[in-house]
Amino acid sequence: MSQPKFKRIALIGIGLIGSSISHAARRAGLAETIVGSARTQATIDTALSLGIIDDGFLDAKDAVAGADLIFLCVPVGASGPVAQHISGAIESGAIVSDVGSVKAAVIEAMAPHIPQGAHFVPGHPIAGTEQSGPESGFADLFEGRWCILTPEAGTSATAVARLTAFWQALGSKVEVMDAAHHDLVLAITSHVPHLIAYNIVNTADHLERVTEREVIKFSAGGFRDFTRIAASDPTMWRDVFLNNKDAALEMLARFTEDLSELQRAIRFGDGDTLFKLFSEARALRQDIIEAGQDIAAPDFGRSEKSVPPKKG
Amino acid sequence: MSQPKFKRIALIGIGLIGSSISHAARRAGLAETIVGSARTQATIDTALSLGIIDDGFLDAKDAVAGADLIFLCVPVGASGPVAQHISGAIESGAIVSDVGSVKAAVIEAMAPHIPQGAHFVPGHPIAGTEQSGPESGFADLFEGRWCILTPEAGTSATAVARLTAFWQALGSKVEVMDAAHHDLVLAITSHVPHLIAYNIVNTADHLERVTEREVIKFSAGGFRDFTRIAASDPTMWRDVFLNNKDAALEMLARFTEDLSELQRAIRFGDGDTLFKLFSEARALRQDIIEAGQDIAAPDFGRSEKSVPPKKG
Repeated sequence: MSQPKFKRIALIGIGLIGSSISHAARRAGLAETIVGSARTQATIDTALSLGIIDDGFLDAKDAVAGADLIFLCVPVGASGPVAQHISGAIESGAIVSDVGSVKAAVIEAMAPHIPQGAHFVPGHPIAGTEQSGPESGFADLFEGRWCILTPEAGTSATAVARLTAFWQALGSKVEVMDAAHHDLVLAITSHVPHLIAYNIVNTADHLERVTEREVIKFSAGGFRDFTRIAASDPTMWRDVFLNNKDAALEMLARFTEDLSELQRAIRFGDGDTLFKLFSEARALRQDIIEAGQDIAAPDFGRSEKSVPPKKG
Repeated sequence: MSQPKFKRIALIGIGLIGSSISHAARRAGLAETIVGSARTQATIDTALSLGIIDDGFLDAKDAVAGADLIFLCVPVGASGPVAQHISGAIESGAIVSDVGSVKAAVIEAMAPHIPQGAHFVPGHPIAGTEQSGPESGFADLFEGRWCILTPEAGTSATAVARLTAFWQALGSKVEVMDAAHHDLVLAITSHVPHLIAYNIVNTADHLERVTEREVIKFSAGGFRDFTRIAASDPTMWRDVFLNNKDAALEMLARFTEDLSELQRAIRFGDGDTLFKLFSEARALRQDIIEAGQDIAAPDFGRSEKSVPPKKG
């Protein structure tokens, strides 16, 4: 079992993920010191007042100095420039990781700036909420969720094992995967769902014959679920699509093809096809619940009121 | 204030909605007797054992006899045949309603079978979960949710007022609307969201380069939300699309047009367009929460663990 404790963890970016790493790492006793950097003093002040960081810096280099574990928790489009900026401050032996939702493009952008002697182990915790900012983080965010690490061939096995132990100590399950495959998997499990959610919210917003007020009032029929995902941080998601273009376009093309089949079935009144395709979708939900990746309560257990009476 | 109490309520179909009407009506003391009919004796036995009905019948006519309030709680494709079957048993003065997610086609199918002297007031409670069957109902399902009534011109105002008072006593807010407009509004707030959810689940299911096991494991990135909706009753949803074809196809065409714009923006690396379209979607979420149509807790408050610490 590798040793998951570090002397100084540097969080570059203190949003939902960075602040949650801090809460979870403090609870598990994984760091002597946690420092961070942010683009604004206001974010640093908030993070200090919430106990997320022990010290905060406007210049990421100052946070990185002396750190043995460094997380870039920034939109993936910023990964390259930030890595370049901190490059000279990264100490020998330090583990440099990130939390970006795209891995191949991030590796391409960051790897050239990781100095010899430091260990680059890119990562992606599959966890989050629709909220952003240092106030939105919490220690349980990673509990039971997967974290994917995508180290390149030749990366120190010791460094990968230590980062694995760290994420496990935060409550995560860890899987090591090829970066390109990660990007393909996430395109269907995360990126395209977000794109679709953003899209239907905008479609609803632009109707002439249905008012926005009506959309809001009657959203409990299904639409409201999509608005939660569509409330996610637009900068983060812009960068995801700019940096995972090929996989996103491939999955989107398949989605559109499949949607055409349903559309045709509706147009020609083909109830058998609709029933068949709708029935197949049901089974996957149960598998996800059994895998511990969602709760079983109806309607996401939106309120305790939504729990049906137990059967005799 | 109209009087919402009835002597004998007949539920034709005892699934999620029918059983929830019973639980809520009993709690509010709105019925002397609640009876029901179902296609199988097993469903009737379950409904009897859960106290949902006082008496159960395999022939809907036997439930309808003597009832002063009749709800058809069946897939919308069955509305016409069921109305025809019970027609002769409907008593003068009875209110006949339904809970179907489509209104124009249901009115067309049912209206010819409602006898003179009875009052046909079609309705649609915008409430539900992904679960089905008599065990899935609960008294709070309609609390704070809208119920849309779509009576045709010339319907007894007294009957509409009584049914309005009934739904209000179940906890609902009530709006009266033209059936065709209802079908358009629901196409975007409910029908197309369900179609999209079914579709992406099937797209994910049919990939070659991403395994079903990977989809399940990493579904917390967004995909799992879609699987909840896609777990809804396939018969009900088949009938919705067969019976609201024009509005569903119109909304689907708009959705696809808008999706093409996003797809183009991804292909050509147009981050400004992506950011703009993603930002617009965020505001609607807040409006829905403020309208009381969803909870504010991050991630649907999936677990109490997901609640971030309150700001100082």
